[in-house]
Parts: sequence; structure tokens; C-alpha cells
Amino acid sequence: MKKNVDTSVPIKIIPLGGLEQIGMNITAFEYEDSIIVVDCGLSFPEDDMLGIDLVIPDVTYLKDNIEKVKGFVITHGHEDHIGALPYVLQDINVPVYATKLTMGLIEHKLKEHNLQKLVKRKVIKYGQSINLGCFRIEFIRTNHSIADAAALAIYSPAGIIVHTGDFKVDYTPVFGDTIDLQRFGEIGKKGVLALMCDSTNVMKPGFTMSEKTVGKTFDSLFAQYTKSRIIVATFASNVDRVQQIVNSAQKYGRKVVVEGRSMVNIMGTAAELGYLSLPDNILIDIEEMKNYPDEKIVLITTGSQGESMAALSRMAASIHRKVTIKPGDTVIFSSNPIPGNEKSVSKVINELAMKGANVIFQDAHVSGHACQEEIKLIYALTKPKYAIPVHGEYRHLLAHAEVAEEMGIEKDHIMILSAGDVLSLSEEKGEIIDHVPAQGVFVDGLGVGDVGNIVLRDRQHLSENGLIIVVVTLEKYSNQVLAGPDIVSRGFVYVRESENLMDEAREVVTEAMDKCLDRNVTDWGKIKNVVRDSLSEFIWKRTKRDPMILPIIMEV
Amino acid sequence: MKKNVDTSVPIKIIPLGGLEQIGMNITAFEYEDSIIVVDCGLSFPEDDMLGIDLVIPDVTYLKDNIEKVKGFVITHGHEDHIGALPYVLQDINVPVYATKLTMGLIEHKLKEHNLQKLVKRKVIKYGQSINLGCFRIEFIRTNHSIADAAALAIYSPAGIIVHTGDFKVDYTPVFGDTIDLQRFGEIGKKGVLALMCDSTNVMKPGFTMSEKTVGKTFDSLFAQYTKSRIIVATFASNVDRVQQIVNSAQKYGRKVVVEGRSMVNIMGTAAELGYLSLPDNILIDIEEMKNYPDEKIVLITTGSQGESMAALSRMAASIHRKVTIKPGDTVIFSSNPIPGNEKSVSKVINELAMKGANVIFQDAHVSGHACQEEIKLIYALTKPKYAIPVHGEYRHLLAHAEVAEEMGIEKDHIMILSAGDVLSLSEEKGEIIDHVPAQGVFVDGLGVGDVGNIVLRDRQHLSENGLIIVVVTLEKYSNQVLAGPDIVSRGFVYVRESENLMDEAREVVTEAMDKCLDRNVTDWGKIKNVVRDSLSEFIWKRTKRDPMILPIIMEV
Repeated sequence: MKKNVDTSVPIKIIPLGGLEQIGMNITAFEYEDSIIVVDCGLSFPEDDMLGIDLVIPDVTYLKDNIEKVKGFVITHGHEDHIGALPYVLQDINVPVYATKLTMGLIEHKLKEHNLQKLVKRKVIKYGQSINLGCFRIEFIRTNHSIADAAALAIYSPAGIIVHTGDFKVDYTPVFGDTIDLQRFGEIGKKGVLALMCDSTNVMKPGFTMSEKTVGKTFDSLFAQYTKSRIIVATFASNVDRVQQIVNSAQKYGRKVVVEGRSMVNIMGTAAELGYLSLPDNILIDIEEMKNYPDEKIVLITTGSQGESMAALSRMAASIHRKVTIKPGDTVIFSSNPIPGNEKSVSKVINELAMKGANVIFQDAHVSGHACQEEIKLIYALTKPKYAIPVHGEYRHLLAHAEVAEEMGIEKDHIMILSAGDVLSLSEEKGEIIDHVPAQGVFVDGLGVGDVGNIVLRDRQHLSENGLIIVVVTLEKYSNQVLAGPDIVSRGFVYVRESENLMDEAREVVTEAMDKCLDRNVTDWGKIKNVVRDSLSEFIWKRTKRDPMILPIIMEV
Repeated sequence: MKKNVDTSVPIKIIPLGGLEQIGMNITAFEYEDSIIVVDCGLSFPEDDMLGIDLVIPDVTYLKDNIEKVKGFVITHGHEDHIGALPYVLQDINVPVYATKLTMGLIEHKLKEHNLQKLVKRKVIKYGQSINLGCFRIEFIRTNHSIADAAALAIYSPAGIIVHTGDFKVDYTPVFGDTIDLQRFGEIGKKGVLALMCDSTNVMKPGFTMSEKTVGKTFDSLFAQYTKSRIIVATFASNVDRVQQIVNSAQKYGRKVVVEGRSMVNIMGTAAELGYLSLPDNILIDIEEMKNYPDEKIVLITTGSQGESMAALSRMAASIHRKVTIKPGDTVIFSSNPIPGNEKSVSKVINELAMKGANVIFQDAHVSGHACQEEIKLIYALTKPKYAIPVHGEYRHLLAHAEVAEEMGIEKDHIMILSAGDVLSLSEEKGEIIDHVPAQGVFVDGLGVGDVGNIVLRDRQHLSENGLIIVVVTLEKYSNQVLAGPDIVSRGFVYVRESENLMDEAREVVTEAMDKCLDRNVTDWGKIKNVVRDSLSEFIWKRTKRDPMILPIIMEV
């Protein structure tokens, strides 16, 4: 850390995503000539982002200040915290710091994008600190629905910022130890300028249950359904959950089959790095499943969110190549639907039930996020001057503000930030002093940022009403119609049903063209407009629909 | 009723929707030369039914047996029970029987479709019976989230079928009396062949709370928020809910403003028919709102499900022409999100919160559907021989089957039907003997049934990747290219970003065309295929996207 810095110089905290784009967690911390970035997540497209695969953060601000950026510091290995790294690192190639499992998952991603040789990485242990420019960052053990999650204590000349990452308090974790509450207390005693704390479950009173309680549920389900094949769907990244399923399988003499690409990947990484302990010979290949009776099998699969391409959804829809759901199968959803996925999950449950499976979705899941009392505990330990609620929708941040106030934070020291806000923070003052670009960037196939609002608007229009194309070939100079107008439609109505309509549409277009020629209108733009307007009016009158109309003029 | 019928002749029960198409409630009951139809609902499109406005039942079976069809018997006035009437009555013009408020709502619909003079209707009172062919149908009072809901006792020569409609048991209803449990008991004593009972809340243990409890919540909220404008969003059709809001407004000296088309319509109908009692001068026009201070206003609005075009959503998005959300406004969601709407509701809540509104959504709603213990009560009263669970997703019907079994129904007397199943039922036997068409029919604008799977597949394709149109003008006979290939795209990528790509695409197409001409390929279909394939391959290689490619050939 620099010496002789002026402690009245404020630190800047800039969320570049994550508040309006839920899930896209990335926050820049800037002090004089140093910037560090906490997390680099992606978000999945909203319903109106048609055809978009992913949304990644806009890092223009980092690019514009590239000489200041010292590194990415990652709290844990979930997609909404690491998913955008392979895209962003191509522009902002700085070192990445993370705990072991988190780094293992990042490395897998970098490999897929052929970046593993280009990016400098360092694995950090709990309790260890790194110095990046003006900053020192300490990794603190937490609990979450993925192992190796860390909170960060960010030491800056302006003061200490504690960032919890996503966390819960688990007194009996499946792997490793309880969140390092002592260290939170110790840092609190030093004096914390600001606490940036997870808001996901802030509307839920009480405490989040321990991950171990789910293990008990598995045990009792395995004890109950001794005659049937058991299929468990859960989040691939919840290694502790998988561990508990494996434990129950071992206890009740079942072999374990793993299905779903991300499940296979993450289990591989976790086992390799020692986060998953697999008894000898317990794993069998999906091809071997036929050699065992149903009651000797447990199948762990992806698809607990009803994602249409995931393994469980394909089993439910009878399009999985290797697993057929049979009457008597017991299917356990070890998950809750993420908001927005409720209907897809219901659909999968119904399909499974129709095939005779016994679907269980009670008590087989606990959240990875802190409820109200756990959040209060972190406030009590750190006693920050400022509260900056993070991770959650706006209404969660608001509810978090109320909790912070209850915990004694002054009302005007509670800062609710939007993506792109530049918060300037010092012992004396906290204020939003600027805004930087922080819209999400759309990824569609190989294209990053080449699909924007106009393209999406067109896709929306096409998706609702289809389109009608009008093609006509004109003679150069004379503008006489040589061929057409031909009318082609897609996504509009059945061709068979619309033959008369299309004949009439052709007349409407011909009339419109004639009118233009009569009036010596030769500007193609004008002709196209006249054609579009007349046809649009005709189609609306006849069908109350509004397809996209695309006139094309050729010239010979 | 006919005399001398053979009681061993079974009755046929045919759901024409409602099980795979949730919401589309319509069931035909057939005995010899008589068919009656219970309910005629519509369903709203699933996410993958792009551009579809509504889904209505396929009534081919009724059309094919039109001479047998005696009438529609309607249980209550919700869209999923009456919404398809204006469409279906155009083909199946038979009388409609319903209670007073239900008929009022039906009449409103018929008027909108100019059908009110064409359709015979009769208002039926609770306790009253009607004779339709072989059938006698008795209307029995129930409670539900809309007034005037009825269960039906369907007397046929094969036995008595009791159909609950959607119901709950409310011992302290806001309007009218408790469900006529005595009559259920009395009919049970006569002997009930089958019970068709609401399954919506069958997975919820215990009893549904009385509608009156919501009134108490309103009172305490009105007592608490005396300084702010109160906005309540609820279902337009829940007249009792609206009544209770009006009562609290009266008690706390507020004027009532009503906003949202369906809210205005249904309140009008309900007040006119005596189902809503409005104190003098309590209603004011939305234009008059500015003449009153905020604390003297309660605004009742549609949009509790986050529907993008509804009044509350427009207020939240700042596009409502007459109401602007202000800091301090209290917005009460008197509703639960219907599955699938969770995310839209969250969006509206966040938008309201960002504008400074205080959003409340606890204790301001109760369900209109019976929970487990109420369902058991109906079984205990009717003691049916067969159970046919209705109204719910497949998993609800399955859970209902378990409840029925608990209540002593023999396992093979519990019939879970799919849409289109023809269940033949007599004292001796219940079996599915046939299947009739029962797919939903899509309504898009004025078109009924002219959008099918091909059109939807095209819309899906267009929505995900947009399209590329290739136009070329050929000389007749020689097939020489006179103009083009021109390439036009929509919904694909930004034009600016894709200029080079499009230039290269043009070359790819030109090459493909040249190859065809060199080989003397003159069949336009073949030329189009070659162009489509080459361009598609090129675009995929370069962008990993798969737009619809539409080659158009003109001839001069």
C-alpha cells in the first residue's frame, strides 16, 4: 500500500452491472491510479431479448482506464460471478485472483475459449491477502451453495470495504468450515467504511437452514424408496449437494450415474481438486446403467430449472437418448425454481408424472443465501459506517436498506446504487458523482454486441406477426414493372388459408405502384413507403394483424 | 327425463380442453341422443405460441354431433370458463344457461362480438333445475373468487354426476351465503355416480381462508397509511374483493377511482345487477382525482399479474396517461402471481419501488379454490362411486387422486382424463373408450385457426435469428442474372456491423448461382436450395447463427 496518502481522498465504487441486469455481478473499485474489479458475471437474457444467448457487462469504463486496472478478484464460481470473464479478458487482460475451486471453474471456461495461456492467474487461500496498486484485498471464508466462496476485505487508503459476495452462515457445512465470523469481527473492530452485503434473501425472516439438513432428507428418501430407481436433479455447481447424494448412495448401496454436460464438467473439476470425495467404484458410466437393477441406481442430473435443453427436461419429454423415464421412478428436485422458471419446472414435473414417475420436491433443497438474521449478524460484526446493499432486485435492496437502518446505519449512509453509478465514498461523505456506461452487451452466437435494440425490435415484430415480402422488378429509367409484384410471407398465416388474401394483396400493391408511376414518383424510397402503407392498411383491415412488410425493388 | 331408459347404458364424459390446455374448461356429457356442455373457457397462449392472442377449444366433436347438443351450462364467469363462448357459439348456436352475474358477464362478451341477438340465454337460480334432453341439471350454490359461482348436479339415466366447478368453502362470504353443503349432502344420500371436483389447491393442506379476512387487512392498511394515496391492484372479476376495498374507502373517508378496462366493465355489470353496493358519490372519475388530496383517494386498478398492457404496469413504466406514481404512494397487490407471471409481477414491483412507492403484497389476498380439507368435505358429503379430478395441472390431478383414495374411493374408480378422452361411465364400469380431437385452436387477430404449427415454427425461427432475403432477377429462357443478387436482412445483426459480411454473402450467392448455371440447373426450386444451403453454411461458419434464409427469384 502507498504511504502518505491523503485519507480524505474518497474511493470510487462503480457497479458495472448487477442491479438492473440481475445476475451480472461486476464492481470496480478505484482509488487514484488503481482499479480492481470484483467478479465478472454474465446474466441470462430476459424474455424480450429474443435469440440472445447471454448478456455480458459493458466494460467501456475499464477499457478507457486500462492502465489503472490491476486485476479481477473473484468471490466464487457461479456463472453470475465468473461467466463473462472469457469475453471481458479478451479486452481487459489483467490477472485473475480466486480461491482454488473457483479458479478451477474459471480455468475450464478459459480453456473452452482458448485463453488459458493468455491470462495470468493466482489461486488465493482464505486469510491470504494480495496487493493490487493502492489496494490490499483479503479473502475471508464464507459459506454458499458452492464450495470455496469468499468474502473480500478491501483495504484502501480511504478505509476498509467488506464485500460479502454471495453467502450464508452454515454452522455445519458439508465441506470445510463455518464462515470466518471471528475475522469479520476482528476487521469490524478495526473500523469498516462500508459493507456491501448480499440481499437475495433479505425479505425472508430468520436463518437459512444448513446444507446438512438436505443430506438427512436424502437419507430418509433413499430409505423410503428402496425399490425404485432414484433420479436427483440439482444445480451442477452445488458440489456439497452432489456429495450428499453420493453419500446416501454409498450408504444405501446404489451406484451413481452422472448426466448433463455441466454436471459432468463440474464434478470432474471438483473431484480433481479434492472438493468431492467419491468412494471407489461408486461412479458408473451411463452406458453401464442397464447392467444394474433399478434399485441399485441413483442418477444425478442437470435440468432442475426446467431448462429445455437440459438432461432432465429431455428425459421428461422422451427425447433423451439414454434414459427413459419409467413408472415407479422416483425423481427428486433438489432445487427451488429461480424466479421466472416456475412454469418450465411445472411442465417438466407434469411430463414426469404423466410417465408414471413419483416426483418429490419437498425438503430436498436449502438456499445458499443469508436470510435476515444472518445479514444482521454481519452488520453486528462489521459495524460499517456505510451500507451498500448488493445482489438482488431493487425491491430486495430496498428491504435490505430497512434492515441496515434497524442495525443502526444512518439513513443517508445507506447507498442503493444502479449499474453505472459512480459512488464516491470517504469517512466524511458518500455521494453519486458520475455515471458510466453499464448497459449489458448482447452475445448471440459468435457475435458480441452486434445485436442491439433495433435488431431485437425487428425480432419481436417478426415473432408476433411474421412478415410479408413484396418484390418487384422495374425497368431502368422508365420504371415500368417488368416482373412482380410477387408476394412471399413467413410466419403470417397458413398459405392455404391465405391464397385469396394474397391475391388481393397483390392487387393492392399493383394499384399502389400504378399510382406512383402515374404521378411520376421515381424515388424508390417513396415507392416503397407507398407500397408498405397501402399493404399494411389492407392487411390490418382484413386480419387485425400487423406483419412486418418489406418491399424490395430490383432494377433491370 | 326420458322414461324406461336402460340404466346400464353408460354416460360419456368428454373433456374437450382443460387438462393439457390448462384453463380451457369445457366438458361434454353425452347420453344417447343428448349432449350438454359444461363451461366454454379459453386459455392464454404459452410462451412458445408467438403472436397468438388466445387459445380456444376444438369443438369438432360437437359440430359433428350438432343435432344432439342441447346447451351450454356455465358454472361461473371467469375467462377460463366463459371466454370461448363468443367463438364457439358461432358454430354451435345452442342456448346458454348460467346464474345472473355469470350471464351478465357473458352478455357483455356477446355484445362485443355482436352476437347478443343470436344466442338464446336463460338465467338460472341456485336450487333451480333445467331439463336438457336426457339430462336434468341442478345449480348448487358455491363460493369462489367471483360471485354467483355454481356447482352442478347432472342427473342422467346412468346416475348423478356432481361437478363442483371452481369452488371454496367460505363460511363468512362477503356477498350471499355459504356454499350449500346441505344440498351436497342430500344429493350424496341419493347416490352419486361420479364427483368431478376442483383440484387447483389440492396440494395445499388445511382450509382456504375466508374472503372476509382480506377485508380486515384492507382496514388495517387504510388505518396505517392515512397520509398517502392508496392504489390497490386486483383481479377485475373479484367483485367481493372490490366491495371490500370500497367498504374500507367508505370507512376511512376516501373516494374511489377505478382504472383498467376490464375493471370498469365488470364493476359496471356487477353494480347494475346488484352484486356490488356502492355508497352514493363514492366513485369519482379519474379526471377528478386532481381535485382531491392524495389521502382522500383509493385507486382500484387492473394489472396485478404484471400484464404489460394493464393499467398498473403502465403506471409503473411511466406510460400511463392519467396516473403518475409518486414517492409515498402505497400500492397494494391484492393477488398472488399466477404461475408463469412471477417475473412480470417482480418487474412491476421493482419499477414501482424505484419511483418511491411503498409496495405491499402480504395478507391482501386469499385463494378462491378449496384446499385439501375442503375437498375432503365434498367427498364426505357426496360419497361418489367414481372420482374424476378436474381443474389443475397433471400433478394436481395426481395429488387429488391420492386424496380421493384416502376418502375411500377405489383406486380403479379414480379417473384421470386427458383432453379428448371419451370416458364411458356406468355403475358397473368406467373406461376410456375413444379419443376425439381436443387440441387448442389458435386465435390471432381476427383469424381463428389460420395460425398453426408451421407458422409458429417460422415465427420462432425468425424471433431467434431473424432472416436474410436473397433476391435475384433472371432472364427468361437464358436464366442469365439480370439484377442482384440483392441481400436484405432483418432481425439478424446491425447493418453497420455486418457490411463486410453481407458483401461476402453476396459473393457466396453469386458463386452458388454461377455453379447452377454452369451445370444448366434451371429448376428454380433447385437453384433456391443451392443458394440457401451455401449461404446458410457461410453464415453459420462466420457467426454461429442460423437465420431464416429466403431466396426469391424473379423472371423478366
